[in-house]
Amino acid sequence: MAGTQTIGIVGGGQLARMLTLAAAPLGFRVIVLDPKPGSPAAQVGAAEITADLYDAAALRRLAERADYLTIEIEHLNAQALAAIAALGKPVNPAPQTIELIQDKLRQKEFLARNTIAIAPFADVKDLAGAKKAWQHFGRKMFLKTRHGAYDGRGNMLIQSEQDIQQAFDRFAGQALYAEQFVPFKKELAVMVARNISGEVRVYPIVETIHKRNICVEVRAPAEITAAERKRAEKLAFEAAGHLPGAGVFGIEMFLTNGGKVLINEIAPRVHNSGHYTTEACHTSQFEQHIRAITGLPLGDTSLVVPAAVMVNILGERDAPTEIAGLDDALALPQVSVHLYGKSPTKIDRKMGHITATGATVAQAKRRATSARRKISI
Amino acid sequence: MAGTQTIGIVGGGQLARMLTLAAAPLGFRVIVLDPKPGSPAAQVGAAEITADLYDAAALRRLAERADYLTIEIEHLNAQALAAIAALGKPVNPAPQTIELIQDKLRQKEFLARNTIAIAPFADVKDLAGAKKAWQHFGRKMFLKTRHGAYDGRGNMLIQSEQDIQQAFDRFAGQALYAEQFVPFKKELAVMVARNISGEVRVYPIVETIHKRNICVEVRAPAEITAAERKRAEKLAFEAAGHLPGAGVFGIEMFLTNGGKVLINEIAPRVHNSGHYTTEACHTSQFEQHIRAITGLPLGDTSLVVPAAVMVNILGERDAPTEIAGLDDALALPQVSVHLYGKSPTKIDRKMGHITATGATVAQAKRRATSARRKISI
Repeated sequence: MAGTQTIGIVGGGQLARMLTLAAAPLGFRVIVLDPKPGSPAAQVGAAEITADLYDAAALRRLAERADYLTIEIEHLNAQALAAIAALGKPVNPAPQTIELIQDKLRQKEFLARNTIAIAPFADVKDLAGAKKAWQHFGRKMFLKTRHGAYDGRGNMLIQSEQDIQQAFDRFAGQALYAEQFVPFKKELAVMVARNISGEVRVYPIVETIHKRNICVEVRAPAEITAAERKRAEKLAFEAAGHLPGAGVFGIEMFLTNGGKVLINEIAPRVHNSGHYTTEACHTSQFEQHIRAITGLPLGDTSLVVPAAVMVNILGERDAPTEIAGLDDALALPQVSVHLYGKSPTKIDRKMGHITATGATVAQAKRRATSARRKISI
Repeated sequence: MAGTQTIGIVGGGQLARMLTLAAAPLGFRVIVLDPKPGSPAAQVGAAEITADLYDAAALRRLAERADYLTIEIEHLNAQALAAIAALGKPVNPAPQTIELIQDKLRQKEFLARNTIAIAPFADVKDLAGAKKAWQHFGRKMFLKTRHGAYDGRGNMLIQSEQDIQQAFDRFAGQALYAEQFVPFKKELAVMVARNISGEVRVYPIVETIHKRNICVEVRAPAEITAAERKRAEKLAFEAAGHLPGAGVFGIEMFLTNGGKVLINEIAPRVHNSGHYTTEACHTSQFEQHIRAITGLPLGDTSLVVPAAVMVNILGERDAPTEIAGLDDALALPQVSVHLYGKSPTKIDRKMGHITATGATVAQAKRRATSARRKISI
């Protein structure tokens, strides 16, 4: 490596911010493409191009100024990234992986085709099709939008014919698919890293807690049996193995009441369920992603603490950002706070997160949730 | 805390860079004052004022743009900082502490007056005085410059009359003092943090290894007896207690052949001997300093790993910076690399550091030194 290399990131939000913070010690500069100036990543030293993530010309400008290209969000112009990759610029994850992930129905079909265990699903073209699927799935299913959904937007639990109509009203004009409701005892997640040489490292299996379809809490390690853990690791490893390109992948899973593990969704990037790694693992998911996409060897993914719990700091109001109680939160032992520099605050907007470590998951959880309660934002 | 507060740092080098990286997650912006634009801190998002550190008007401009003022180097205009503090701006460490530390002879006198154990020392006004001191100290002593010395500059071991003449030639025009050579079995160091409320936390005692008077290696924890550790902790705690102002203090000590502990020097700031805390402790010295000077509670200073060894990456040539071998270094387990973004490389310039963790100090040391050998800079 001669002198300083630059990593271009599509998106400048909190994931890009934490990638930028992790890139600096390894000697990389960062430039982000984001629709708004003064993004969370730009605040920590990333250069920025202000443009829409679907703007092909802006993506080319980003590529011209970067030695490596990556993403922090999958809702972007994947065709433009494919064209950039075709000219020889290293783009990771691979544009075809991003394109696949963008369409949740295609993602499910792809996983099914590769015999990766997932919940039963069906394409839904119209109201009649939705009703048929609902009957087929035992009158309990999800209707989900195929494109652009994240943080709870684009999911509806369907338990009646009226729910179907409501979903069609809410998601009017959007392509949908149906997924059987599978009763689960836990939601699990795992970060899997693969670098350019094909080296793979798997992080600990964690448990995720969702409210209003938003991830609110992550418990590491997941309190599951050794057999369940092995099954989850094997499945995640296999699923990631089918997706071309380097980088860190966030893999969400269901642990069914019967003890089976199913893949729910895959994010081809650093992920909220991996934030705990900054305090709890030898190598954070952010440093790992930087290593993975720049041709460096991967770091140790094991825990340095017995347990860690991450809770998101979701916005509590719609207002200019004012935070109170940081002092009370930080008075608690082994509590780390990460603020993202976003303004304004919006209800349920991800404004930051807290990670607490501890001797047990229960202790870490008490610390994290107490700390969260001290903060007002 | 309403909205975003700003921390002003005098100096924009690697310590300011790592403070800036630690300030971001807590929601603080940073602005640095540095003689050169594009400083290591500015590269990671700090705003910057380009001016000499003795420029009183520039220090006032820094203070106007900051809610809290701190330093990363003690060679600056302490009188100007005192005037700023007198107007009510929080300046930490206290300007009188900085002023005291700037003059190593005054520092020694201050410690002696407060009955803190140190090596015997003497003021040296001229060649005759130096010769007298040398006789008095058993014909083995150091001659040191009182002001502006760091990283090996300003120290000479005196074992003959010729050495005295050489020192007077080398340090011509500079105020000097003499210090008895005390045979020691180890050099120790410890970071002590005190916040604005007076809360104090002590980090583990570490062993430091110097070459050419530059710190090259830090071993955590120091391999000393429990009694020696207690003595060192107590001494460091007492010494820091005499210095007004909040912040992190780096305290260097000698463990004599007789098992006594003496204070060598105190730095009123984050310190090279505390870099290991980023990987090895719950709270890094950088986050701790940010907490300490902004009125936040202090974090847990205990180790999260059994052992860690830090080695500095010192420049190997005088040339534009080119680094090679980062990939081979990072292939080693539990190795973290921190580059400072400096160019050009100069011989013995601090270009970065490596921290390796491990089950034992010996294992961490093998990893850190192997990693260092892989890197060329």
